[in-house]
Amino acid sequence: MKNFDIKDYRVNDKDSFKIKKHPTKIKDFYEDKAEYETILSELQTEMDELQSMMYAHNRYGVLVIFQAMDAAGKDGTMKAVFQGVHPLGLSFYSFKRPSETELNHDFMWRCFKKLPERGKVQVFNRSYYEEVLVVKVHPEILQDYQKMPNEIKSEKEIWENRYKDIKNFEDYLANNGIKVIKFFLNVSKEEQGNRLIERIEDITKNWKFEEGDIKERGFWKEYQEAYEEMINKTSTKENPWYVVPADDKKNMRLIVAKIMSENLKSLKMNYPEPDEARKKTLEGLIDTIRQQNNS
Amino acid sequence: MKNFDIKDYRVNDKDSFKIKKHPTKIKDFYEDKAEYETILSELQTEMDELQSMMYAHNRYGVLVIFQAMDAAGKDGTMKAVFQGVHPLGLSFYSFKRPSETELNHDFMWRCFKKLPERGKVQVFNRSYYEEVLVVKVHPEILQDYQKMPNEIKSEKEIWENRYKDIKNFEDYLANNGIKVIKFFLNVSKEEQGNRLIERIEDITKNWKFEEGDIKERGFWKEYQEAYEEMINKTSTKENPWYVVPADDKKNMRLIVAKIMSENLKSLKMNYPEPDEARKKTLEGLIDTIRQQNNS
Repeated sequence: MKNFDIKDYRVNDKDSFKIKKHPTKIKDFYEDKAEYETILSELQTEMDELQSMMYAHNRYGVLVIFQAMDAAGKDGTMKAVFQGVHPLGLSFYSFKRPSETELNHDFMWRCFKKLPERGKVQVFNRSYYEEVLVVKVHPEILQDYQKMPNEIKSEKEIWENRYKDIKNFEDYLANNGIKVIKFFLNVSKEEQGNRLIERIEDITKNWKFEEGDIKERGFWKEYQEAYEEMINKTSTKENPWYVVPADDKKNMRLIVAKIMSENLKSLKMNYPEPDEARKKTLEGLIDTIRQQNNS
Repeated sequence: MKNFDIKDYRVNDKDSFKIKKHPTKIKDFYEDKAEYETILSELQTEMDELQSMMYAHNRYGVLVIFQAMDAAGKDGTMKAVFQGVHPLGLSFYSFKRPSETELNHDFMWRCFKKLPERGKVQVFNRSYYEEVLVVKVHPEILQDYQKMPNEIKSEKEIWENRYKDIKNFEDYLANNGIKVIKFFLNVSKEEQGNRLIERIEDITKNWKFEEGDIKERGFWKEYQEAYEEMINKTSTKENPWYVVPADDKKNMRLIVAKIMSENLKSLKMNYPEPDEARKKTLEGLIDTIRQQNNS
């Protein structure tokens, strides 16, 4: 991918991130469909090989988080980008409206249970970040559903605590060899509208539409502010956010795949090298197999 | 796939299954690599569309079980066959040596926890069937690790109970809309030997070799008998075993994909049809989106 620089998408802790300054559409990294497929397929092979090495090395794990407005392309990007990575090294989980049991816990609890094993990649479709997005846009959820003790009174205090708690939690993961890779898929309001209309017109997709989905779009400005603050407060050197232009789906997929592959490459890992004794053992095993064949 | 008949691979409850009569190699369903890829890709598209409809319909779930000797191709088959099915509709789980906690439970407990949701496909790499395979070949495991009460004394009784318990459990799943699809990948001893030697010679694979893996191969005959009995005792009309020739990997993948696709097609499902009122609502949503664009 010519002219690709991961820094163009990464938000550092020292940046003051302004969502309006980030384009939702940039020059494509591909000329045509064929080139798109070639680049993506190469990146997938790379990711597959790196995940396989990570599994053998058995020290690192990877947590990938996708956050975005509806129809920004989370599902489709996951499907396209991770094809070709071995499914036994990869898990996906979608966080939906929390259950009664989940609401009876602290806000990150349901995510703790889904953290990756060492050697594996866990992909979150939404995450604990919803707790500073939808809940921030609709703070009545705090009172109505989330059972915060009364002594915690100010809303501002709650968001500040949550940003800090999330940052600390991700530091903990980094300290323990779990790499967190966070994508915000940045779609324009106009493109989102087009995609939603397409979905409504498609019988294989419109069954899942609720009026509420469209009502949420009325809070576009509030969501943009919540994303901006979230990214400013939780981008760190170890665990930065990547902001990906999402108006062109193919380009978004290439960028996500490239960022994934560069992050996996940055892990200091290798296949365990057999020493001389181990080599002897392995040779012995080959002899045994040949003897078994004749028995 | 010309001349493909699912019946050639399915073991019915009335059959008396003889493992020796089932070939590990048959005439390939493809002429060359290009044709293999075309057929597989069509089957994958079919499976993806059917899983997507199953998700919308939200009544059925699918449990896929792979059992086989080491190096028969479970992992590679899963990776190749399920590429292209949406990862959010698909989960994989490998059952390994049971943990202390798992051994403190009844033998199917750890599998219960991983059953599919409605609308989704769950793939098991090994399963509760290990309990009538490795445990049957090494019955000392029953005494040493599995904490069966003393009153259950005879080994024969234990296996008969397990076959019956498994059959009843799978009946329960069928009664509740969970389709079970069971594959035994049938590899020859010679081909297995070749693949094991290849692995030992490959630095990206030999790190996970243990001498025990090869020692197990010494029990080939005992395993073949255990598979034969397992298939005879647990193939039912609702939940049959499929025995797939495994000496040619590409052919095995095509057969597995075809059986998956035919099984998914057999589910009575459809996308929810919007009625007139719902159609009106959807049209109204499109208007709302257009108004939001201008606000």
